[in-house]
Amino acid sequence: MAEGLVLSIDGMGGDHAPDIVVEGVDIVARRRSGVRFLVHGDAARLGALMDRYPDAKAVSEIVPAEKAIGMEMKASQALRQGKGSSLWNAVAAVENGQAHAVVSAGNTGAYMAIAMFRLRTMEGVHRPALAARWPHAKGGYTVILDVGANVEADGEQLVEFAIMGEAFQRAVSGKERPSVALLNVGAEEQKGHEEIRAAAQLIRDSGVDLDFRGFVEGDDISKGTVDVVVTDGFTGNIALKTGEGTARLVGQLLRESLTSGPLAQLGALIAYPALKKLRARMDPGTFNGALFLGLNGLVVKSHGSASGSGYAAAIGVAEKMARSHYREEIASKLARVSRAPAPAKVEDAN
Amino acid sequence: MAEGLVLSIDGMGGDHAPDIVVEGVDIVARRRSGVRFLVHGDAARLGALMDRYPDAKAVSEIVPAEKAIGMEMKASQALRQGKGSSLWNAVAAVENGQAHAVVSAGNTGAYMAIAMFRLRTMEGVHRPALAARWPHAKGGYTVILDVGANVEADGEQLVEFAIMGEAFQRAVSGKERPSVALLNVGAEEQKGHEEIRAAAQLIRDSGVDLDFRGFVEGDDISKGTVDVVVTDGFTGNIALKTGEGTARLVGQLLRESLTSGPLAQLGALIAYPALKKLRARMDPGTFNGALFLGLNGLVVKSHGSASGSGYAAAIGVAEKMARSHYREEIASKLARVSRAPAPAKVEDAN
Repeated sequence: MAEGLVLSIDGMGGDHAPDIVVEGVDIVARRRSGVRFLVHGDAARLGALMDRYPDAKAVSEIVPAEKAIGMEMKASQALRQGKGSSLWNAVAAVENGQAHAVVSAGNTGAYMAIAMFRLRTMEGVHRPALAARWPHAKGGYTVILDVGANVEADGEQLVEFAIMGEAFQRAVSGKERPSVALLNVGAEEQKGHEEIRAAAQLIRDSGVDLDFRGFVEGDDISKGTVDVVVTDGFTGNIALKTGEGTARLVGQLLRESLTSGPLAQLGALIAYPALKKLRARMDPGTFNGALFLGLNGLVVKSHGSASGSGYAAAIGVAEKMARSHYREEIASKLARVSRAPAPAKVEDAN
Repeated sequence: MAEGLVLSIDGMGGDHAPDIVVEGVDIVARRRSGVRFLVHGDAARLGALMDRYPDAKAVSEIVPAEKAIGMEMKASQALRQGKGSSLWNAVAAVENGQAHAVVSAGNTGAYMAIAMFRLRTMEGVHRPALAARWPHAKGGYTVILDVGANVEADGEQLVEFAIMGEAFQRAVSGKERPSVALLNVGAEEQKGHEEIRAAAQLIRDSGVDLDFRGFVEGDDISKGTVDVVVTDGFTGNIALKTGEGTARLVGQLLRESLTSGPLAQLGALIAYPALKKLRARMDPGTFNGALFLGLNGLVVKSHGSASGSGYAAAIGVAEKMARSHYREEIASKLARVSRAPAPAKVEDAN
């Protein structure tokens, strides 16, 4: 790996694989950033595609895999039967030190299960988390985690998520000191679940180096109130999907409005460049690439229905993470938290 | 109350009270639907406003209240010090049988606490819930509850929420048999928290008359997959606020795009009527009016920042609920659930 960055790609994962995968690799290849790719999957299909994308071909090595894991396969089944699949081999390339990070648009549950099984969690991490980005009103992206790796999280896990999410945000945005908050039903200290209040106390007591801002509410994700929003995987998954659903609904209503008559259509035609810019801003493709945090290896998940440019965005996340000091930062902060004294119990009478 | 519907109004609650409250009453009054209003609050200010809104004045009685509860007052403080306030008196009018329902845009926590204290929960209801509506792609509104009355809910409570939410949707939409589902991180049976899986089983075992569709995900709220989405108050609050935040963000980006240059502005001007229709559809004012379900009395919460037409929408919810058989329906279904045999425990060995 001395010759620069190598990324391991699951060529067969996703709704439109392998076509959009190779298209995404090609987009990145044309930037000439020196990244090389190991593309796992059906050698015949991938080879034929590469012939159509010479830039991708020039920086890729096709690694034949005998099978692919379907989008509907259960995680437990993928663990039993997945060996030799493009997804399995793509993850194994990171484990074996052949690549710096892996990217797949395939079956999320299978991907998480195989990545956890092969790469294991980092020391000091109880459970990995899936971190996604969401556009906000100030022009950047809020990192939100966990968006679905676990359905529950206790106070300690939320603290780990905070540390991992902050390092992720720094690596992808270049922001020196991202601010962090816990997602809650109100900003007041006494609000919410016990786990969340415990996590807030734990972060404050640990003395870990975080710009911690306490609690934020659901609408703060789009406002960009803080850079990193931390929550359990149940709440985070539902928040993210509710946001995605709403953005899709508004987009649909906008299209309906602007095709509702000749005047509306004319207006839309004239305003087309501006509307196109709006669309790009809210297009999940532009902020595609969720990171599976807390493993001994960089694991990036692309949306299953990503386009070629969306897939390129996910590769971009893998590239930025691989060039960052993300894992060293996490490791040192986690060590600090685990060394912190247990918080004193507050007692009524003394 | 023999002479028709009477609604009790907190004249002083909300960011723009009492002005928008009287404006909202006036909008409803001009429909001549025979509703009369008891408007509680500062008699001098309300009287002066009524002089400007003669339609409101003709159907309203001003009930002087010596004070108002501020938006920042804590619920516990409101319970101790709130007696004699416009909010307190507005709720008491329902308790005393002087009005069929109460509407306030005031402090949510104080409103819930006072309403629970004065009206008490219905027999068979463990905890009340706050139900809101959200526009969906099929043209109607999804009812979602609980959006913040409780931070947790066990299986039994979720079943009660399902029953109450279904009756609410029928009363406001006129839909004969609204479909119901539980909010989860996946549609598969084995997904999510134990409480949710228990609730799904409980609904199926109880034999209660509901069109129950199992689990839905966050994006189904905007898709309109089912008519009623049931969840705990923590998740529901965060989902609703995340959706609101996203809608606001897209609206802001759209405005920015359409004012970004002369061509964009021209296009927007030509498409203005279509854009205005879109705005009305996503304007929280048009679906304003959350219902605090499960109390011995109808309690409607308006957004604190509602406009006059938004407030009129909340009054419309109170009117529809008061003319419905909602409480009788809930009472009979709850009785059925509580009579249902406890679900048998599944045992491995026999």
